[in-house]
Amino acid sequence: MTTFSPTDYDPYDFANRRHIGPSPDEMAEMLKVVGAESLDALIDDTVPQGIRQDDPLDFGGPLSEQELLVKMRAVSKRNRVLTSLIGQGYHATITPPAIKRNIFENPAWYTAYTPYQPEISQGRLEALLNYQTMIADLTGLPIANASLLDEATAAAEAMTMAQRSSKSKATAFFVDEALHPQNIAVIRTRAKPLGIEIITGRPSDLDASTVFGAIFQYPGTNGVLRDFTEQMQALHAAKALGIVIADPLALCLLKEPGAMGADIAVGSTQRFGVPVGYGGPHAAYMACRDELKRAMPGRLVGVSIDARGNRAYRLALQTREQHIRREKATSNVCTAQALLAVMASMYAVFHGPKGLKGIAQRVHARTVDMAEGLRAAGFDVFPRKVFDTVTVEVGPFQGAILKSAREEGINLRPVGETRIGIALDECTTPAVIESVWRAFGVTDRKAATEPAYDLPEKLVRETPYLTHEIFHMNRAETEMMRYMRRLADRDLALDRAMIPLGSCTMKLNAAAEMMPVSWDEFASLHPFVPEDQAAGYRELIDDLSAKLCDVTGYAAFSMQPNSGAQGEYAGLLTIAGYHAANGEGHRNVCLIPMSAHGTNPASAQMVGWKVVPVKSRGNGDIDLEDFRAQAEKHAETLAGCMITYPSTHGVFEETVREVCAITHEHGGQVYIDGANMNAMVGLARPGDVGGDVSHLNLHKTFCIPHGGGGPGMGPIGVKAHLAEHLPGHPHFGTEGAVSAAPYGSPSILPISWAYCLMMGGAGLTQATRVAILNANYIVKRLEGAYDVLYRGPSGRVAHECILDTRPFEKSAGVTVDDIAKRLIDCGFHAPTMSFPVAGTLMVEPTESETKAELDRFCDAMLAIRAEIREIEEGKIAAEASPLKFAPHTVEDLVGDWDRAYGREQGCFPPGAFRVDKYWPPVNRVDNVWGDRNLTCTCPPMSDYAEAAE
Amino acid sequence: MTTFSPTDYDPYDFANRRHIGPSPDEMAEMLKVVGAESLDALIDDTVPQGIRQDDPLDFGGPLSEQELLVKMRAVSKRNRVLTSLIGQGYHATITPPAIKRNIFENPAWYTAYTPYQPEISQGRLEALLNYQTMIADLTGLPIANASLLDEATAAAEAMTMAQRSSKSKATAFFVDEALHPQNIAVIRTRAKPLGIEIITGRPSDLDASTVFGAIFQYPGTNGVLRDFTEQMQALHAAKALGIVIADPLALCLLKEPGAMGADIAVGSTQRFGVPVGYGGPHAAYMACRDELKRAMPGRLVGVSIDARGNRAYRLALQTREQHIRREKATSNVCTAQALLAVMASMYAVFHGPKGLKGIAQRVHARTVDMAEGLRAAGFDVFPRKVFDTVTVEVGPFQGAILKSAREEGINLRPVGETRIGIALDECTTPAVIESVWRAFGVTDRKAATEPAYDLPEKLVRETPYLTHEIFHMNRAETEMMRYMRRLADRDLALDRAMIPLGSCTMKLNAAAEMMPVSWDEFASLHPFVPEDQAAGYRELIDDLSAKLCDVTGYAAFSMQPNSGAQGEYAGLLTIAGYHAANGEGHRNVCLIPMSAHGTNPASAQMVGWKVVPVKSRGNGDIDLEDFRAQAEKHAETLAGCMITYPSTHGVFEETVREVCAITHEHGGQVYIDGANMNAMVGLARPGDVGGDVSHLNLHKTFCIPHGGGGPGMGPIGVKAHLAEHLPGHPHFGTEGAVSAAPYGSPSILPISWAYCLMMGGAGLTQATRVAILNANYIVKRLEGAYDVLYRGPSGRVAHECILDTRPFEKSAGVTVDDIAKRLIDCGFHAPTMSFPVAGTLMVEPTESETKAELDRFCDAMLAIRAEIREIEEGKIAAEASPLKFAPHTVEDLVGDWDRAYGREQGCFPPGAFRVDKYWPPVNRVDNVWGDRNLTCTCPPMSDYAEAAE
Repeated sequence: MTTFSPTDYDPYDFANRRHIGPSPDEMAEMLKVVGAESLDALIDDTVPQGIRQDDPLDFGGPLSEQELLVKMRAVSKRNRVLTSLIGQGYHATITPPAIKRNIFENPAWYTAYTPYQPEISQGRLEALLNYQTMIADLTGLPIANASLLDEATAAAEAMTMAQRSSKSKATAFFVDEALHPQNIAVIRTRAKPLGIEIITGRPSDLDASTVFGAIFQYPGTNGVLRDFTEQMQALHAAKALGIVIADPLALCLLKEPGAMGADIAVGSTQRFGVPVGYGGPHAAYMACRDELKRAMPGRLVGVSIDARGNRAYRLALQTREQHIRREKATSNVCTAQALLAVMASMYAVFHGPKGLKGIAQRVHARTVDMAEGLRAAGFDVFPRKVFDTVTVEVGPFQGAILKSAREEGINLRPVGETRIGIALDECTTPAVIESVWRAFGVTDRKAATEPAYDLPEKLVRETPYLTHEIFHMNRAETEMMRYMRRLADRDLALDRAMIPLGSCTMKLNAAAEMMPVSWDEFASLHPFVPEDQAAGYRELIDDLSAKLCDVTGYAAFSMQPNSGAQGEYAGLLTIAGYHAANGEGHRNVCLIPMSAHGTNPASAQMVGWKVVPVKSRGNGDIDLEDFRAQAEKHAETLAGCMITYPSTHGVFEETVREVCAITHEHGGQVYIDGANMNAMVGLARPGDVGGDVSHLNLHKTFCIPHGGGGPGMGPIGVKAHLAEHLPGHPHFGTEGAVSAAPYGSPSILPISWAYCLMMGGAGLTQATRVAILNANYIVKRLEGAYDVLYRGPSGRVAHECILDTRPFEKSAGVTVDDIAKRLIDCGFHAPTMSFPVAGTLMVEPTESETKAELDRFCDAMLAIRAEIREIEEGKIAAEASPLKFAPHTVEDLVGDWDRAYGREQGCFPPGAFRVDKYWPPVNRVDNVWGDRNLTCTCPPMSDYAEAAE
Repeated sequence: MTTFSPTDYDPYDFANRRHIGPSPDEMAEMLKVVGAESLDALIDDTVPQGIRQDDPLDFGGPLSEQELLVKMRAVSKRNRVLTSLIGQGYHATITPPAIKRNIFENPAWYTAYTPYQPEISQGRLEALLNYQTMIADLTGLPIANASLLDEATAAAEAMTMAQRSSKSKATAFFVDEALHPQNIAVIRTRAKPLGIEIITGRPSDLDASTVFGAIFQYPGTNGVLRDFTEQMQALHAAKALGIVIADPLALCLLKEPGAMGADIAVGSTQRFGVPVGYGGPHAAYMACRDELKRAMPGRLVGVSIDARGNRAYRLALQTREQHIRREKATSNVCTAQALLAVMASMYAVFHGPKGLKGIAQRVHARTVDMAEGLRAAGFDVFPRKVFDTVTVEVGPFQGAILKSAREEGINLRPVGETRIGIALDECTTPAVIESVWRAFGVTDRKAATEPAYDLPEKLVRETPYLTHEIFHMNRAETEMMRYMRRLADRDLALDRAMIPLGSCTMKLNAAAEMMPVSWDEFASLHPFVPEDQAAGYRELIDDLSAKLCDVTGYAAFSMQPNSGAQGEYAGLLTIAGYHAANGEGHRNVCLIPMSAHGTNPASAQMVGWKVVPVKSRGNGDIDLEDFRAQAEKHAETLAGCMITYPSTHGVFEETVREVCAITHEHGGQVYIDGANMNAMVGLARPGDVGGDVSHLNLHKTFCIPHGGGGPGMGPIGVKAHLAEHLPGHPHFGTEGAVSAAPYGSPSILPISWAYCLMMGGAGLTQATRVAILNANYIVKRLEGAYDVLYRGPSGRVAHECILDTRPFEKSAGVTVDDIAKRLIDCGFHAPTMSFPVAGTLMVEPTESETKAELDRFCDAMLAIRAEIREIEEGKIAAEASPLKFAPHTVEDLVGDWDRAYGREQGCFPPGAFRVDKYWPPVNRVDNVWGDRNLTCTCPPMSDYAEAAE
């Protein structure tokens, strides 16, 4: 009789069998190449002993996929999904099943990266251009971006955009009191460090001469509908700007902000088919007048041409963005909500203008019916004319009615002490209306099946929208499904190839991690439901926070920041709050190494700090002398420093503890950027090495997929002394909100939690170790072909490396761009270009890539080096090299071929799959042309024509 | 105040907005082309008044997608999912989430058609070849098919295969009494009309000289493990064949049938990651000795080469199949369980031999532990040595223990009156074992975490399996995901283009219809749970049956047949049962028109009937004179007729009532094949025009996707007088089972039910009308280019049409094959080739295709006609024409081009998308080479090498 020992080979071992790419055998081979005796030895070589954590991570035993799903199901059931008519910017919506299945649940869409490489991103760029077109149409403003994090931060961005664009000298900003409370809260948070005075009042109270801008909500939080034309005129007369926060569904029936003269419009597109998800993620939009476009934050998709003159899409006006402008940036926006914007745009394509109008009409008419029922029963329901939201005066009966409604399965909104808000939505049926009535004691009334509608005549929309043919597609699901498939196929995402980005950790987003996000119990909760209906979320958030504390060495976590940049901003605010509480509110100098990610200085300026750059040494490390000198120089006003660990140069600096100590000595606090946390988890903790606060990019290290440029999550961890200064939220009656929803984008937190549970502490640590192995393996394989810019003392890199491609410009006239485009021919998304060092490539393979995929990449890079050498050796002219014609398309093959190299060499360089080759849909995209001839909405359909004639 | 009338434009109208392809505007244009005043007029022209149904279908109002999902959720909750340890051929299993998401829920896999066109099916052919390799390895037999419907029908197929292959003169067949009851039942059903005597007993009872074959179950239904080597030797000595039904998971530890000398092995691969689904669908396998391969039923994937000599996969030995052999066929198997076979094969790729062995060891060791716990408590547990199943003697306490187990959340199996069966599975945890013990009153024992294992030494497997490199892939999910994506991308399915098959209705499989199939409440129910745990299924099946009765005019439905051919067979058995009950069991002549689908005569011979073919007239109609003459001639022995309506020629024959009347007059019953029901729903009912029984292909007319060649469902409807003769099932203690599970493949019934609910009666009728419009539109657009073989009196076709491509062979040397392959260049799956008329194409567009897609197809067909004309006019030689080089691949483009036509013409004929072109992975596949050099398992990996060197 033999004993079965499951430890021999556990088929359900997620961490070692599924998440981590190289198999044990492969790792052994790779260690040989790397020249390390063992993985332990490599890690000891790489990660300084001085920063290693004392105890291994211990989360208890890891779960298998099946165990995870069982546990997750049980936790999800602790959330109770009622019908929420709370409104306040969040509404139930119907995600068309074809969109849910083919986009939301399709790795071709959700594993894609931000479309910085336009040639391999034409599908999502088209979807995002549809989004911009939809927003421009609905708002009546010509330029729209795609997209911002949520309505509240979009409103705050609009404020600062108005500040920098307005010619008014005023420093105050007017806020309509009818804004949703979270919008007001986030605006206040944002205004304070910038010294902007916030004036709240009714629109009629506005004195335009006292402000640089004003913002209004439409419909107002209580349902009020106002025409802001007069206010806009007054503002413009005072050289100030006017902003309207508008519900896009309401705009299907109501006069658009552009027609009122608004300069900027913002809002949430959540109710266009994106699950409410306990608060997020959803895409917020921003639209503006043409003159303001260069001041607009966020991603902007534009139309350009490729090397053949064919239409091609790309990100336009990138020079506006923080990664270019750094401390001169006026916004730190980086992550968008791409996946959610794509969904919202597909919702519009799916329904078309007629469908959207039909939905808006239905919501409105049912609201009229519902309000009439209450009025008929003697309730004071206001405003008189509404779109979808009313407020009811109930005196002392608020609590009783709310309770009675919950017993009917419905959440209503408490407003003040004596009122109740009700907002209907796409899902509201006559039965729901009758439930609402019963909650108010009205039991004898039947909801109308064809209710009347009753909009204020002056506010009825008079202009068409969604006139472009893309919104007039045949609405058969067959066609829609094929359209979504065609777009997906144009793009190269993680489901086809490694995306070896140094700036982002593009690792496996496991199916088991993703599945719970689709479940109703996570997807359908309104962010402002009573706590007891969200017990599952509570458990998940508490346990995830505890685990992240373990991982980081911090004492508390806030889940509110819904992007990395938001996390930075929130972290700095926390530090500022701490200084202020200590009577040191004057501290406002922030030391930031020159190699920092662009969001760092941008975030610092957003909290009103002065950025003092610190030099790097030749090996890429922080120049400790300069750091100390600057700290001493600014000792009186030192707020803190922002460092990244391991550094953005991909090195574990030995001096990190000293940097922290110097900062502390001079009264500052230490912000450690968590962007490179994938090199630390389980080996070292930012809290142990001296950090006071860090954000974690859950969409990098903790498996939330990139979604083609978002969503993200950037929760922050802090030491105990900072905990009381973490962001608050009006929902809890506290100050300092940085996001619209109390927990940012909670519906994607199950992904990170699932990752932690299935990996366990040992698995997470092994992931880090293998990420380091994979990076060092690439370094070794490329040795002799590419110089690696920075290494640690033992010659090792951390989890990423910078390949120095600058010399080739001189030696062969080959740019980093040429190499990146040539990698597309090889079937790869390029590494990060020109960050942190211009003209270089930063490569981060992550632990999820197998040896075979790493080899495929190295083979491609070596072949490219050989092609460069051909030029260096005079065998081919640079301008005749395949490097310059890359990427190659089917169009190249079909046409005449008069190149100095063959078709085979052009199209099938090493790395490229043969049968399964990825063909980019366009040749190299012309960036300059696009910015010179800016078009940010869909071009005429004739140009879309696909079928050959 | 305006009244909102949602009837103006209902955005949630699934039937008209999503399911039906042409928009109202498009339909108006199409009617003009067709030359009909209105859709009503076209239908009146097309469908004879004499057969039209009296009342419109009325199922109540149609549901929107959202309403459907809410209703479906409520119904699903009425199923109670307990832990079922019932065994009996069905076991809980873990579907790896990556496979669930990327195959089971991916339209690229589930909407594909049977891989008859190998050039556009290389992905699923590879997956199915993996399946065959897995089965061949596990069973130790060299040839395996992919796949059969379920274990019980596979066992019955094995019996008839043995009968026709054995050289023994005996007419009896031995059945091991340890077979699962449903296996014995289906074998008995199948044996009876063929005059095979069934002898049951213990293996030791076998007298090999009395039988042509014998079948054994391994492990036996009660858990027994026996070595059948002696029996095999005895059988072979008597020129008889031996069959083993084997559990593939058990084969990971136990001696394989091939090593025992078995000639044939069959079994279910359900527990390889396919949800149990209340009984189906799952893939059954069959493997055999090489000498028997030409007698094997079902699809066989083989390796061949393409026109460039590159490896290519295809269906091998198709001449074995019923569509070729017709009444000479010895099996009517047509539908496979392709999607489920793909899942099972991916499960094996995912786990590899080590993983499968680990799973088998775990299941076994826990069974040993569980059994010991019961023995220690004094229970009589047998057999002594088992794999995963034991039987416990409980005397009078059976009911009490079963109840006590249910209270623990566990279903056990009642065996006889005094025993209980327990079968463990991949999902069994120590906690489940402890629950079982508690059910038996054992409360003080802890399950072992590392239990021992205890297999009979002589039966321990000694040979390796899954040695091919494909089963030794890196098991990182990243790699698995990319492998599945690569395979999917090689294929052309409905998610990219119309599949205009005349023999199959390839319509939209809407996402909302598909989603519930994934829900636990439908997916995780064991087929033999107590009735009260399946109340949701009961409601669904009852309501769907009632709706199908409405649609067909029948009185009762049986959901048991799990394919169309199974439906035919079950329907004929029902008729035979009726005749027998009337004392007319001698009736055994079946009239079948020559144009019938090949399964018709094959099914007739399976019930022991004599097939008498009836001539067609020049217009394709049944030759009424011949029909009458044959009926009269065989009046004494006429069992019935089998007709298809509208005919397989795509015409509504006016004489159908007369055909039925003649049959009835002469004592026969009328079988109307439901294959073309998509032209009838809502317009005419088979029951009204004279049918007594019909099967419906739910995977054609009622939206179950084809899954690349299965699953299917072929329920049968009957008139009241036949209802008592419908199939029974041992689970209900009744006779005449035709499938392993009582309701066939119930877990896909939600799809058809959802379709009915979202369409409503009017929507279903409109679908039929538009299907007819679409077909007639194609006829008109192709007029002058292609002759349409058959039309109704008014010149109209029904929902499909036959294009006569035969003349081109003479005029230009162009075959129907050339046209089919050229259509691939245009981005289409070819129409059905050579059925029902050799050398022609049959086109059925279905209602789900839009005008734009129909036009794209017509443009392609017209361009092909122009290319033929070029040959006819001597402008190009036939052998130089693109028609002969089709399909064109990237390999053609990359290589030298010395063709008489340009690259552009070759690769981008009209219809082809430009940017989104589908590139077949291989050139034209050589069919003859493949059958001459038959290889049906994975070739060496070196040939798979993908990355360019």
